[in-house]
Amino acid sequence: MQRYFLTEPYEAKEHYVITGENYHHIVRVMRMETEQQVFLAFSDRLAIIAEITEITEDAVYLKEVSKEQAEKELPVNVTIACGHPKGDKLEWVVQKGTELGSHKFIGFPAKASVVKWDHKKLAKKRDRLKKIATEAAEQSHRQFAPDIVLLEKEQELIDVFSSYDKVLIAYEESAKVGERSRFATALSELKVGESILIIFGPEGGFSPAEIETFQEYGGIICGLGPRILRAETAPMYVLSAISYQFELV
Amino acid sequence: MQRYFLTEPYEAKEHYVITGENYHHIVRVMRMETEQQVFLAFSDRLAIIAEITEITEDAVYLKEVSKEQAEKELPVNVTIACGHPKGDKLEWVVQKGTELGSHKFIGFPAKASVVKWDHKKLAKKRDRLKKIATEAAEQSHRQFAPDIVLLEKEQELIDVFSSYDKVLIAYEESAKVGERSRFATALSELKVGESILIIFGPEGGFSPAEIETFQEYGGIICGLGPRILRAETAPMYVLSAISYQFELV
Repeated sequence: MQRYFLTEPYEAKEHYVITGENYHHIVRVMRMETEQQVFLAFSDRLAIIAEITEITEDAVYLKEVSKEQAEKELPVNVTIACGHPKGDKLEWVVQKGTELGSHKFIGFPAKASVVKWDHKKLAKKRDRLKKIATEAAEQSHRQFAPDIVLLEKEQELIDVFSSYDKVLIAYEESAKVGERSRFATALSELKVGESILIIFGPEGGFSPAEIETFQEYGGIICGLGPRILRAETAPMYVLSAISYQFELV
Repeated sequence: MQRYFLTEPYEAKEHYVITGENYHHIVRVMRMETEQQVFLAFSDRLAIIAEITEITEDAVYLKEVSKEQAEKELPVNVTIACGHPKGDKLEWVVQKGTELGSHKFIGFPAKASVVKWDHKKLAKKRDRLKKIATEAAEQSHRQFAPDIVLLEKEQELIDVFSSYDKVLIAYEESAKVGERSRFATALSELKVGESILIIFGPEGGFSPAEIETFQEYGGIICGLGPRILRAETAPMYVLSAISYQFELV
């Protein structure tokens, strides 16, 4: 069943009205008709099953059939922060990471980041990533689409450390010396409803100075097993492990 | 340090000789010189650190410095089988899945597979996937490059079920009805050194008839959490969870 994200919070109403891009998708792309059902996902993460009652020239009218029962969201709040990687890797991380349940993505210029994006380019990039996140959230039946934040300075990332219950840094050098327990320990300490920020370097990794600063502000460095993972693969590993730990075990 | 895969098993020798494609890579691409070191990974999964002693016009001579100590391979033997997906998704699964530790990849024509590859096309495709697996194994510092097998009939996949200690089938319908424990239970029953085959459908998923046949031959259907994962994302989820469970927890 098709899923549409609305920008307003849920409110019990006789009718819900859809216009604009979602209207276009329902009527022109999906060619839906009255009596067909869709999911409507509200900004407060509540979702309902709704039935189309009327289609006019510029609006679709729907009535609530029932609340969506299933909890589709990770029970912990995960933010994935990536040092701006090359090419379209960030798009890839956002698409797959949304499927895997990330709540938010932050891009930031790490010391080894090759790409330099100015204010205008960042805004454009952010819009594109938000669109990718929304599509992936719809496709994977999530209850909301993750936020995208692209920072202009690495310091801005450090400034948000204190708003998280835990901050981890995936660090290849930890993996190389055989550090294998900190990630699992951190997850075992994390409680349902808490928030975790996990930081990944760009292709060139982090400098010792960057790692030192992260640690000063409370970040915990950890390895992700004995194999060296690419910049874009490591976030997938972390999100899969978190889902496994909190949703399946 | 660069890593090269050799087709012969390890044997203690005074000198190791490298020719062909690896020679080209060492001498022309990396422009290495005598006294520089590389990893040599043998077909029996043993790897050594070796030092270049001589470079001639068509061969590099190396001597063993030490055995590689770190265990880079998953402690369980994982085979990922994918119903042939569209486009280059199988290449993507092989690249990322190799980083994440898969021992073998099997491609097979599922009922919903759109692509139809004949014998010749399969052989060409296999060569390409083997090259991708070898490159990803080098990059992620693995001790061997995974095997690639592309089957012409789905029955050939079922025929190998009995050679595995466990066979799992990732099934979206299981996830939808809230089945969340079988995957973790299967992993908890799996012992170090044992083998597991995990089967993933193409974009269209499996038909009820296919699932029934898999089950008749001992396959266990399982869900992978509450979100719907794409055909190429689900194998990453499974491999990450296995690494987490067996290497980090």
